[in-house]
Amino acid sequence: MAHTAKYPPTEPFTVNPDDSVADVLNKMRKISFQGRSLGQAFDIWQQMLADRCTIWLGLSGAMTAGGFRNIVSYLIKNRMIDVLVSTGANLFHDIYESLGSPHFLGDPAEDDLKLREAHLDRVYDTYLDEDIFRVIDRWILDWAHTELENRPYTSREFLYEIGRSLSGIAKEDGILTSAYRAGVPIYCPAIADSSFGIALAGRKKKILPPFQFNLIRDVEETAMIFEFSAETGVIYIGGGTPKNFIQQSAVIVDREDYFGHKYALQITADAAHWGGLSGCTFSEAKSWGKIHPRARMTSVRADATIAFPILATGVADTARHVIEKRNKPVFEQGSDLGFAGHTLSDWQVPPLDRITMQALVQEKGLPHGLLPDGSE
Amino acid sequence: MAHTAKYPPTEPFTVNPDDSVADVLNKMRKISFQGRSLGQAFDIWQQMLADRCTIWLGLSGAMTAGGFRNIVSYLIKNRMIDVLVSTGANLFHDIYESLGSPHFLGDPAEDDLKLREAHLDRVYDTYLDEDIFRVIDRWILDWAHTELENRPYTSREFLYEIGRSLSGIAKEDGILTSAYRAGVPIYCPAIADSSFGIALAGRKKKILPPFQFNLIRDVEETAMIFEFSAETGVIYIGGGTPKNFIQQSAVIVDREDYFGHKYALQITADAAHWGGLSGCTFSEAKSWGKIHPRARMTSVRADATIAFPILATGVADTARHVIEKRNKPVFEQGSDLGFAGHTLSDWQVPPLDRITMQALVQEKGLPHGLLPDGSE
Amino acid sequence: MAHTAKYPPTEPFTVNPDDSVADVLNKMRKISFQGRSLGQAFDIWQQMLADRCTIWLGLSGAMTAGGFRNIVSYLIKNRMIDVLVSTGANLFHDIYESLGSPHFLGDPAEDDLKLREAHLDRVYDTYLDEDIFRVIDRWILDWAHTELENRPYTSREFLYEIGRSLSGIAKEDGILTSAYRAGVPIYCPAIADSSFGIALAGRKKKILPPFQFNLIRDVEETAMIFEFSAETGVIYIGGGTPKNFIQQSAVIVDREDYFGHKYALQITADAAHWGGLSGCTFSEAKSWGKIHPRARMTSVRADATIAFPILATGVADTARHVIEKRNKPVFEQGSDLGFAGHTLSDWQVPPLDRITMQALVQEKGLPHGLLPDGSE
Amino acid sequence: MAHTAKYPPTEPFTVNPDDSVADVLNKMRKISFQGRSLGQAFDIWQQMLADRCTIWLGLSGAMTAGGFRNIVSYLIKNRMIDVLVSTGANLFHDIYESLGSPHFLGDPAEDDLKLREAHLDRVYDTYLDEDIFRVIDRWILDWAHTELENRPYTSREFLYEIGRSLSGIAKEDGILTSAYRAGVPIYCPAIADSSFGIALAGRKKKILPPFQFNLIRDVEETAMIFEFSAETGVIYIGGGTPKNFIQQSAVIVDREDYFGHKYALQITADAAHWGGLSGCTFSEAKSWGKIHPRARMTSVRADATIAFPILATGVADTARHVIEKRNKPVFEQGSDLGFAGHTLSDWQVPPLDRITMQALVQEKGLPHGLLPDGSE
Repeated sequence: MAHTAKYPPTEPFTVNPDDSVADVLNKMRKISFQGRSLGQAFDIWQQMLADRCTIWLGLSGAMTAGGFRNIVSYLIKNRMIDVLVSTGANLFHDIYESLGSPHFLGDPAEDDLKLREAHLDRVYDTYLDEDIFRVIDRWILDWAHTELENRPYTSREFLYEIGRSLSGIAKEDGILTSAYRAGVPIYCPAIADSSFGIALAGRKKKILPPFQFNLIRDVEETAMIFEFSAETGVIYIGGGTPKNFIQQSAVIVDREDYFGHKYALQITADAAHWGGLSGCTFSEAKSWGKIHPRARMTSVRADATIAFPILATGVADTARHVIEKRNKPVFEQGSDLGFAGHTLSDWQVPPLDRITMQALVQEKGLPHGLLPDGSE
Repeated sequence: MAHTAKYPPTEPFTVNPDDSVADVLNKMRKISFQGRSLGQAFDIWQQMLADRCTIWLGLSGAMTAGGFRNIVSYLIKNRMIDVLVSTGANLFHDIYESLGSPHFLGDPAEDDLKLREAHLDRVYDTYLDEDIFRVIDRWILDWAHTELENRPYTSREFLYEIGRSLSGIAKEDGILTSAYRAGVPIYCPAIADSSFGIALAGRKKKILPPFQFNLIRDVEETAMIFEFSAETGVIYIGGGTPKNFIQQSAVIVDREDYFGHKYALQITADAAHWGGLSGCTFSEAKSWGKIHPRARMTSVRADATIAFPILATGVADTARHVIEKRNKPVFEQGSDLGFAGHTLSDWQVPPLDRITMQALVQEKGLPHGLLPDGSE
Repeated sequence: MAHTAKYPPTEPFTVNPDDSVADVLNKMRKISFQGRSLGQAFDIWQQMLADRCTIWLGLSGAMTAGGFRNIVSYLIKNRMIDVLVSTGANLFHDIYESLGSPHFLGDPAEDDLKLREAHLDRVYDTYLDEDIFRVIDRWILDWAHTELENRPYTSREFLYEIGRSLSGIAKEDGILTSAYRAGVPIYCPAIADSSFGIALAGRKKKILPPFQFNLIRDVEETAMIFEFSAETGVIYIGGGTPKNFIQQSAVIVDREDYFGHKYALQITADAAHWGGLSGCTFSEAKSWGKIHPRARMTSVRADATIAFPILATGVADTARHVIEKRNKPVFEQGSDLGFAGHTLSDWQVPPLDRITMQALVQEKGLPHGLLPDGSE
Repeated sequence: MAHTAKYPPTEPFTVNPDDSVADVLNKMRKISFQGRSLGQAFDIWQQMLADRCTIWLGLSGAMTAGGFRNIVSYLIKNRMIDVLVSTGANLFHDIYESLGSPHFLGDPAEDDLKLREAHLDRVYDTYLDEDIFRVIDRWILDWAHTELENRPYTSREFLYEIGRSLSGIAKEDGILTSAYRAGVPIYCPAIADSSFGIALAGRKKKILPPFQFNLIRDVEETAMIFEFSAETGVIYIGGGTPKNFIQQSAVIVDREDYFGHKYALQITADAAHWGGLSGCTFSEAKSWGKIHPRARMTSVRADATIAFPILATGVADTARHVIEKRNKPVFEQGSDLGFAGHTLSDWQVPPLDRITMQALVQEKGLPHGLLPDGSE
């Protein structure tokens, strides 16, 4: 048959009760629809691990409440990822669980006013103890104003220090504590948009100045990591600020031989046709230069609570030897991040030069008021 | 902590590279969101198999093109399901593959006019050979008008006979051939709405009368199976006519001790908030009396090509001993279906009685023109 | 700016409190995402009406329960559509409402067991009176076995006759009654998969034979309408059997100058990436030859209860003069459908000829058992 | 009929070509599914405007690229909203358009590498000019380091100052310029996670310190507005950081008579069953105390590019007299925000008191290391 020459045939999935998780994922590569995408994701993550690649995990959604704390912790400890970018909620819930406080198996149809009276906060089908959140709020407020210095902190440094302090009191290991020990940087671009923000807004005295986050330095640090990485790969669980933050870092880089992430996989329940960044395809990202023209990439349209435990288990199995001998990126944590022998003090992001700026304002018919008045 | 007493805690998923598929599914029961639903589905299917239960599979979507032929065939051979209700497309594509014709690994972004010229039909990321479809069309047309008798056929009998004939020429075993051998009934309520309809619409001579399907008898047979089953359980892949057909059969049954399906699980990417039957919850189905008030039930919001291979593999593993010694429902295939010692000839569906009809027309203020004129 | 020459600019939507519905739709054509798609749908429907085009409406989902009865009735009366293909549920619910029985404003979080006790069936946020359904079931059973002849009926003829009888007793005009009066054909390819099937399965006496639907003739009739239409256009609300049935008819047609629908719009909440027919793009349909290579087409990803009332109101406004002078397709209802001077008695669908069949079996390596034994 | 007494009947939608947008929305309240939700949203927004209510708009997604700049600008000018919380992207794209640069009507199936070569960035079906983005980046960098003082800025003050400067050079009015003139505060909790972050990361000289955002003060300001508002209402387009940021502010407030937002509506294509904050219901938010127990609230599951232009037009029409005489909240912009006679200097957020903290640590079995060492 002529077509078989050009297009490889699919291979219907065969049930084998003795199959490992990795066997199932391998077979999925030859079926269709999102199952095939998950099979491709399985391939791509293994390729990232085998290549000289800095691997980023973008973690959005309520994944700690969703049961992902130990998965992320495992990935950090075994260096199946190298940098984590997360929403604040996932990290705050991580503190909650590390202190020995469980989430609860709940019901999405429960009466929410009854839960309110019981001081239980609902996350779809899962509850958490509101009172313990308030305790952690107070702890973070006190900690930030007594343990930290009076200067702006990157979210990375702030979270590293929290990991350090938490390690001293935690009942269980989690994301922040394992990242602290492994030296894996965690960025949280919208850190004030979470219980961290709620906690730090609680000022005990009027004269206490608000805690300062050094947001722009977070941006610069991530761009620096991209610049000095041999290759980069990204894994997105959901979209949101973590995905956008990692994606935008790739376009800041001013390296002639860098054309975006070489490996990219995302697991999202969102769809491309709504136009948002969370659901957009990696093909779209190529137009922005965020993804390499010949990148290995796939989008898996699925709830991460189904797809990711399977994927992580399968890769942990298949890639165990690759992981052991992996040439892991090394970070030096501190006020400045050290990476590959560099810090921000010997690196900068060059802005558009003045000549090109003037030429573009002219060519594009933009207002001349945009032009800088002179000296650079 | 007080809450732990009332609500069991979640258990964050731990990665273990040596976990079996069943291990992963077991752990998912204690996490959140759709992962938990999949874990519940894993439980429920095992419970169906252990109970005295007739298990129905509703198969919608393009699942044969999606790579599911061998999965469904496995479920039939191992009697992990007892009755199949499917769209016509899944069965027609099954013939295609049983004849040795593969689907092809394609690209959703391919130029569809080029595919048209190459006689390739696209199903999202998968192609099939249009010319072979035309051959099968012609074969079915000839077969139906020469091999079958000149009388209306239920879709069940029609598909049983096709399974028989196909078994003689097929290169590989598939859904229709394994169902034929296992005596598992297959119903296809919208059979003309598929390539079967296209095939049978091709009349060679004007005088050849159209082939007749005995649709209402299909409805009656399925209701009869419900009536004489100890318990019933349903598994829906997608929604569509298969789900509706199985659900509606439950309400036809006139048995005092039957209150709907005792076990129900569905895997669908649809959402309840659009209002359609495909995405609706089993809770909604309780208002109609289709689901037992105390049924074990769950809806998994996921692409079946991800969730179902995993689920089927896990159940095949865990339930292997239960499956072996299972008290399987037995069907006698023929013009009339025999089940549990009964056929339609000794069973009937009693319509609303005349007295109640009159009372309701009066009470509800309905037009009297609805009333029958007299004798029953 | 160079890009403006090649790509027209978007025009941000401006709020004007005095805008008509049509004004809003016109502006949407120049914005982005699904709003743009809805604006395109507005254009395409107007173009269908202005062209010599047979316009098909595929109606899936629970749209009568959703509040669409009068919209569809309006489209039929004003001939903004020419042929309707529907699920059985939408037509059965139409009878219910035509008899003066309302649906009720309900709550998706209501206790379904309480509704069950109150004989209320829930459709997401809407309830209906179960007792009245049972009355209609009985009426249809009696009606079919006393008013109709003892021969197979196409769903089209059956529904035409029900429209006629319903017109005599209905309290309000609806889909079936207005289609009856306008001579607009209604097809229901899965008619037994609905309360019609439940009703007709209720056999009063064992000896009463089941009512017969002539499904294949439905397929042939729709193909004949395509063959003798100057152009065809399709409007899909949801997917399901109505979409598939209309789409498949286009490929049966054996007309050298027919290449599929010239105009196509769908409103669906489904997504293409699940691989199913309901959510697939019209581009995919081109590979199958269902859609014209240069068709005007758009998919609007939206709940029809939002998008369609707006769309129908806008088109009814803008196209009112086009609608008045429209050259409407004329159908002669009866046992055989008459269209454009033809009936099925002078038309046939030629199957694949024997020579090509033999050649393809050889070329594709298919089993020789597929070949007819000889004479044609 | 008994049921009508308890549950009001639905009213099928009737098409009237002369209906205004508001007429259509009014009718939708009596149909089902998401159409009903949109009808309810229409009611709720009108109620907010009529009440003594501070109205918040959370703007997520790529809505400026989507064509929403003039809608948001209209809402600000006519004070149909009082505070805006947005992603950075929507505000950066607003600058782009205010400078006279259009987005372009594109194609989601376009070759993204060709777009890359043409310096066009794609947002689903819409393109923008990459070169102009680079010009704006440079302008913002220069502007921030020359026009602003060397101290941390809230995102609110930063955006107010950008609105001021932009007003001097803009070719068209937009979100930032109209908010500047109307004194409407704009918050951007993840401002560095956008082209603002990219721009400010471009440091011309190594010694130039990174620009500082005063994130926690943003949090405190929004909480203060909630505290001194008579009532609060929220409108969410999409979810993301804007929704979370507004929702969390409600829980910071320490007012005995404040129980969360009294009015709440969201338009999102997300679903609740994925567990994320973006798609969650307002019922879930009640368990957190973010929504008033008796709030008027609805979630419309739809693409905002369809639902919001219609909703905004309808409310602008119906509520025009209410809007004119509305008792609008007044803000005094400056380094500190003034609202209702207060600034942050005379207000504070009390953290959990020390006694309760100790009691909870004991009761919940939390590590004693959480406790502050002593004096408050």
